[in-house]
Parts: sequence; structure tokens; C-alpha cells
Amino acid sequence: MPGALLTDLYELNMASSYLRRGMGAPATFSLYVRNLPAERGFLVAAGLDAALAFLETLAFEEEDLTYLSSIGFDETALDAFRRLRFDGDVWAVPEGTVVYANEPILELTAPIPVAQLAESYLLNAVTLHTTMASKAARYVVAADGRDLVDFALRRTHGIDAAMAVTRASAIAGFAATSNVEGARRMGLRPAGTMAHSYIESFGDELEAFRAFAEDFPGRPTFLVDTYDTLGGVRAAGDVIVERGLQESAGIRIDSGDLDGLSRGARALLDEAGLPQVRIFVSGGLDEREVAALVSARAPIDAFGVGTQLGVSFDVPCLETVYKLVRYDGRPVVKLSTGKRTLPGEKQVWRGPGGDLLGLRGEDQPGEALLTQVMAGGKRVGPAGTIEGARERFRRELSALPVDALSLDAPRPRVTRVSDALTALAEQAKAEALHRASG
Amino acid sequence: MPGALLTDLYELNMASSYLRRGMGAPATFSLYVRNLPAERGFLVAAGLDAALAFLETLAFEEEDLTYLSSIGFDETALDAFRRLRFDGDVWAVPEGTVVYANEPILELTAPIPVAQLAESYLLNAVTLHTTMASKAARYVVAADGRDLVDFALRRTHGIDAAMAVTRASAIAGFAATSNVEGARRMGLRPAGTMAHSYIESFGDELEAFRAFAEDFPGRPTFLVDTYDTLGGVRAAGDVIVERGLQESAGIRIDSGDLDGLSRGARALLDEAGLPQVRIFVSGGLDEREVAALVSARAPIDAFGVGTQLGVSFDVPCLETVYKLVRYDGRPVVKLSTGKRTLPGEKQVWRGPGGDLLGLRGEDQPGEALLTQVMAGGKRVGPAGTIEGARERFRRELSALPVDALSLDAPRPRVTRVSDALTALAEQAKAEALHRASG
Repeated sequence: MPGALLTDLYELNMASSYLRRGMGAPATFSLYVRNLPAERGFLVAAGLDAALAFLETLAFEEEDLTYLSSIGFDETALDAFRRLRFDGDVWAVPEGTVVYANEPILELTAPIPVAQLAESYLLNAVTLHTTMASKAARYVVAADGRDLVDFALRRTHGIDAAMAVTRASAIAGFAATSNVEGARRMGLRPAGTMAHSYIESFGDELEAFRAFAEDFPGRPTFLVDTYDTLGGVRAAGDVIVERGLQESAGIRIDSGDLDGLSRGARALLDEAGLPQVRIFVSGGLDEREVAALVSARAPIDAFGVGTQLGVSFDVPCLETVYKLVRYDGRPVVKLSTGKRTLPGEKQVWRGPGGDLLGLRGEDQPGEALLTQVMAGGKRVGPAGTIEGARERFRRELSALPVDALSLDAPRPRVTRVSDALTALAEQAKAEALHRASG
Repeated sequence: MPGALLTDLYELNMASSYLRRGMGAPATFSLYVRNLPAERGFLVAAGLDAALAFLETLAFEEEDLTYLSSIGFDETALDAFRRLRFDGDVWAVPEGTVVYANEPILELTAPIPVAQLAESYLLNAVTLHTTMASKAARYVVAADGRDLVDFALRRTHGIDAAMAVTRASAIAGFAATSNVEGARRMGLRPAGTMAHSYIESFGDELEAFRAFAEDFPGRPTFLVDTYDTLGGVRAAGDVIVERGLQESAGIRIDSGDLDGLSRGARALLDEAGLPQVRIFVSGGLDEREVAALVSARAPIDAFGVGTQLGVSFDVPCLETVYKLVRYDGRPVVKLSTGKRTLPGEKQVWRGPGGDLLGLRGEDQPGEALLTQVMAGGKRVGPAGTIEGARERFRRELSALPVDALSLDAPRPRVTRVSDALTALAEQAKAEALHRASG
């Protein structure tokens, strides 16, 4: 499990200062995305499971304390850290929920030292998963019903990221993953074919295809572009016929003009009496390239996507923040240039007319998106599942307006702010200015 | 340790096919970056330590095999996997070495099943670390001797990535990191101040600064921009004088016009008789913004950098590849459109006139960059260290031409190809075309 030292030093500084001063009043921090990047018309919330797993087990080990002692924390601080656990409350939107700027993905209320300590890990986890689910969702929009396979493992920023991409793409609706460990851990369908090196090691393409068909008679997919792509399609067709794989086999094209080559391949396969053989393409595709192939009606059955998905290449990080919005019963705002915050514990109501951001206690029409997922440090309600998140996203996707779905110039829905929240923000701002000038 | 299932399914497909067929001849794979992105004038090789740690311990656990059985691998495959270990040779450039397109970062020779299986993890690790070291190096160029601190933990793609960024930025020359677990594991200097929430929880800025100075009398850094930045500077100055922190304290500005505010803060501090108080800035800075502040002579002593560094925002992934270049004594090339490869085991010689890419056995002038780091599955030579890599990069950086160092329109050095390699490439291409047409 992730440890308590997976934090920034300043969190430990602040936490120890609070603990030393007996400042243990409840603080509410709100985790949300400040602005949507121009390339995103909506985001898909994810990472809640990782966040809750961290909070449940948050504790300092003796070796953590030994290290903290070596860098200057005194016995008072170490004693307080030794006893520290997360015993607070968390409200969150379910994974797979569509969210927009300023809508809380997660809100946490706990004594301020532990609420502060959790910041770095929670931001890391929610940002990673939400970034990846939001990127994967664009591929799902682009593919318009065709299958997508996660090929990102080799390109992600480490193994945590690979697992997050596999999970987030499953939530978005991908059909399978090449990541074997990810498929095992998450119960997903593993998928894979062969590399060019396989063909090269045989030297002869036909011989390589025959060997592969013999060893994987189930659902072999033949990589046809090692030498000459259409030549490769003919060789694959020969082996498919020889071995009676007409119903199960596929071919994969990984380079070149995918539109033209997929049409050429389809024609060759159809001429050879192989209309059932599926055509799979890959090769650094971003979601706009997938959309272009789909809208040109290229005869492609499935897309494998790696690099562009795995690091969310166009938007590798979202502007997530974790802001103090209430402390010791008092609403809090921040007035720094360009970084204003809204005070108080919040709720978002979603209705046919759009979203309303208000205060948790308000009574408003629509579906309240945030629910309590942790009370006194323990999870409440049933644990979320990948299937549940996928189903939630599928439902929300079908209700999204066309403007938000656009890949090239998306326009997110605008979230309205309730009168009560507006009034509280004014009040808190006046108080903060008074304090700053006092 | 990372497990043997941290791989793409196709690697397992190919490995099992090779094992079943007794195809255990030695294969050499070369791991390199195919093209440099326009935003990079040079790359900094890193990730070797993670790669070797993976190879040393590569083995299937029984639970791995149980899973593979459940997805269709038969007893023959499982038995072969059970016995599989990495017992090959690795040549690599030391971490911290500057590399360009097509120059091998690592070359591995082993029986083809295991050499193939290792692909996904090796690509992941070397890509992640090299991407991050190359990004961090640009900050070092930009900061021109001023201190840099890694603030990326909350923004990286997971915890592996956070550790990689901390390590890679240390290699590039960063002075410290906010990542406490990273500092512990790697023996680096942890650094941190306070967040806006700390000020907000006190409500009164002066009171918060006094509390922090009392709790952290060593080297306190006061965050001054929660309400009004210059007002915050005055408050920090008062506390610094009150507590006699003139020699050790600093201030941090995290928002707004950093050039103007740093000048205003410097003037106020100097007027207050505090010329030693250091000015620290942060707030989503990319390396060009750092360079602009430095070249405008803004009175900034240190930069904290997070998001833009942590995901290598402008270039989140490099075009690394892992290509079969020799199999069973025979040079191998790939002819796919835009993806041509050069055959054979390679060496790079670096001299004053630039780099020469040739074959490992050649005798050429200059420093041979690749050395053998693993023989028969065991590491050879002394283990690389962060300090060693940092020193290596510092030396290489000082020798880089101005064109490669440019942040805005960098031009990498061009690597020449030796006559022997050119000849082998022609020969291998002719043979491959002959095979493809045969």
C-alpha cells in the first residue's frame, strides 16, 4: 500500500505545526478541476477507488518516523504522526461520472492535519485516473461503436500509470487490453497478436504465419505490414484458408496509409472468400485519426491505441486542485490572482437543463452527483466496480450534448452557481479581505 | 519487484511460440529513440537501473502461470515459462549520457523468447526516465545556475512516475525535491514550505507566519501571496526581523506577475534590511518562463516546478522503439513505411566533431558510449549512482553546442553512420526484400 511519506514535505510541515498547536478542527477540502483545457468538452471522473484505499490505510510506520527524525522533525511531531489516522468523511461522485470545471470530484472533511497530509496522494490519484478516463472517452466517441483495445503499457509513465490507463479505458468502454497483469488484476479481456520481430525471426512471412496459426488456433491475428502490406494480406489469407480459420482470424495493419491499406486488404480478403476476417489497425493513432477513419468509412473493425492514449498526449495533466473551503465551521476562500475559490461544502445537481453547483445542504431539483462514500474513516455503501463505472459513463455519454462531444472544438456545458453559494462566496470574500487588511 | 506479467499479451504469445518450436537462438534488440521531437535538442538517457533490476529478477510465479492457464496457455507453454530467466547480455550508455535519435540507449542479447518478453517493461522504464530527465535538463539550462526544486509529486502519472521524476531531475541537476518518500529512498534533499491553506486556517497571515517561524526556525520559507503579495512580503519581513531569521529565511510567490512581484518583494526586503532573504517562485512554470525570468534578471533565487515537469507537458512521450537487429547470427532490418531500422549490434563514438553510429566491433576514434552492464543475466561493473549520472550529465551539458541547447528552436547534433553499418544495412535490406518476394 502507498505509505504516509508519499506526500510533499510542506504537508508534513503544516500537519506537524497543526498537531503541535492543537489545531484539530475539521477542515473540508474540495478536489476539482479549475478549468477545462480547450481540448476537452467534458471530463470523466475516476480514481476514487485508489483515493479511498489510500485514506483507509494511511498511517506512519516506524521507519517513516525514523526518517522524519533524521530530517529534523522532533519527538512531539513524531508522537503525533505515530497516532495519526484518517477518520474523516468523504463525499464523491461515482467513477464514470461526467464532470466539468469547478464541480467537486471529491470532498473530504477531517481534522486539518490529516486532511492536509492526504493532499498530494489524492491529487495524484484523481488527476491520473481522470486524465486517462477523459482521454479514453474521446476515443470511444471517435470509434463510434467499433472496438478499441488498450495497447498503452509500454508508453505510460510507469506501471501505476499503465494500470490506471487500463482501468480508465475499461471504464470509458474499451473492449480489451494488451496489459496482461492489468487484465488479471481487473478481470478484463487480454488481447494481443504478434510483433514484426516475430516475422523477422522466421525470415519468411508465410512460414511465420503458419507457425502462429498452429500455435494459436483460437483467434489468430496476423500482422501483415512487415514487408509489403498487401503481400502480407495475401499470405495471411492463404494461411487462414489452409487452416480453416475463416470465422475467427483477423489481420493487423500497423503502419502506412491505414485508410487505403484497409480498403485494399478488405478487397483482397473478400475476393479470397474471407468476408468474416476482421481488420485491426494500430500505429500511434490519436482520437482524431480514429474519427477520420471512421467517418471515411474505412473498413476497420477495431483500433489498438497506445502512446497517444497512454500519456494523454494532447492534455497530459488536468488542472486539478485541492482547496480548503471550510475550516472550524467558517467558510474559506482564496483570493490569489486567477486562483479564486468558492467556499463551503458543495453539491452538484444534474438535470436536463445542465448542472447546478450549490451548497451541500440545499434542496435542488435534479440528480445529486456527490454521495457520501466514507464516514469516520470507513467506506460506506457498496464498493464501486469497473462495470458499474462503465455503465454509468455509457449512460451519461448518451445524454451529452453534441457541442461537448466534438473532438475538434468542444464546448463544455456551463455549470450554474446557486444563489446560496454566490451569497456565501460574497460573505467569505468580505471576511477574508477584512482579515488581510486587519 | 515488477512481475513477468507486466508485459503485453503478444509478447507472451510470441515467447510461447518460440519456446514450443525450440527457437532459442540469440536475438539482439536495440532500444533507441526513433526521432527527436521538434522541442528537444538533445535527450538525457535514464532508466537503466530500473531496466536492469527488472531483468535480474524476471521470473514467473505460480500464480502468474495459473492465470496464463486460465486464458488459454497450455502445459507446454507454462512449463517453458516456469523455467524462463533472463540470462543474456546488456550493453548500455550510462545514465546521464546525452543521446540523439537512433543512438542505442540499451542493447540486449538473449535467447529470443526472453528477449521478446522483456520488451514492454524495458520500453516503459527507459521511456519514462529518459522523457523526464530530458525535460528536467531543459529547466537546468533555463535556470542558468539558479536552484530548482522538484514539486511534481501531485501531478505525475502515479507514484512510479513521481519517483522517476524525482530521480531524473536529480540527475539533471535539481537541488532538492518536495517528494518525501523519494528523498528518503534516493538520499536527496527534501524541501518544502507551506500552502495557502495554512494561512487560511489561521485566518490572519501574520499569525500564521509567526506560528510557522516558531515551529520551523531552521530555514522557514513564507508563502506571501494568499491575500495581497506585497502585503504578505511585509508581514514575512516583520516576522523574520522579530525572530532573527535574517540569514536563513525565504519567501515564496506562487501566483501573479512573478517578474514584477519578485522585484517588488526584493525592494521591500532590501529596504527592511533583509538582503539575505531568498526569493523563491513557483506556479505552473514551464522552462521557457523560467528562462524569461532569468534573462530579464528578475531577482529570483530558486524555482519550484511541478506540473510542466512532472508530465513533461510539451513532450509527454518519446518515440522509443525496441527493434530486433540481429537474430541467430543474421542481421535483421524492418522495411515498413517510415519505420526502417538499421541492423546489427551497435556502438556510438562521441568526439569533438559529433557522434558516429557504427557496429560494435568497429575500431573508431572518440569515446565509446555503450559499455557492457550485464553478462549472463548478472550485472557487471560498479552499479551506477544518481551522483555519477548527475556528474556525467553536468560534463556533457558543458560540451553541448548552443544550437542543441536552445529552448525555442533546438537543433540536435546529427549522428553520422559508419561505412560498415551502411554496408550491412544495404546487405540486410537486399536479403529482406528477397525473403519477402520469395
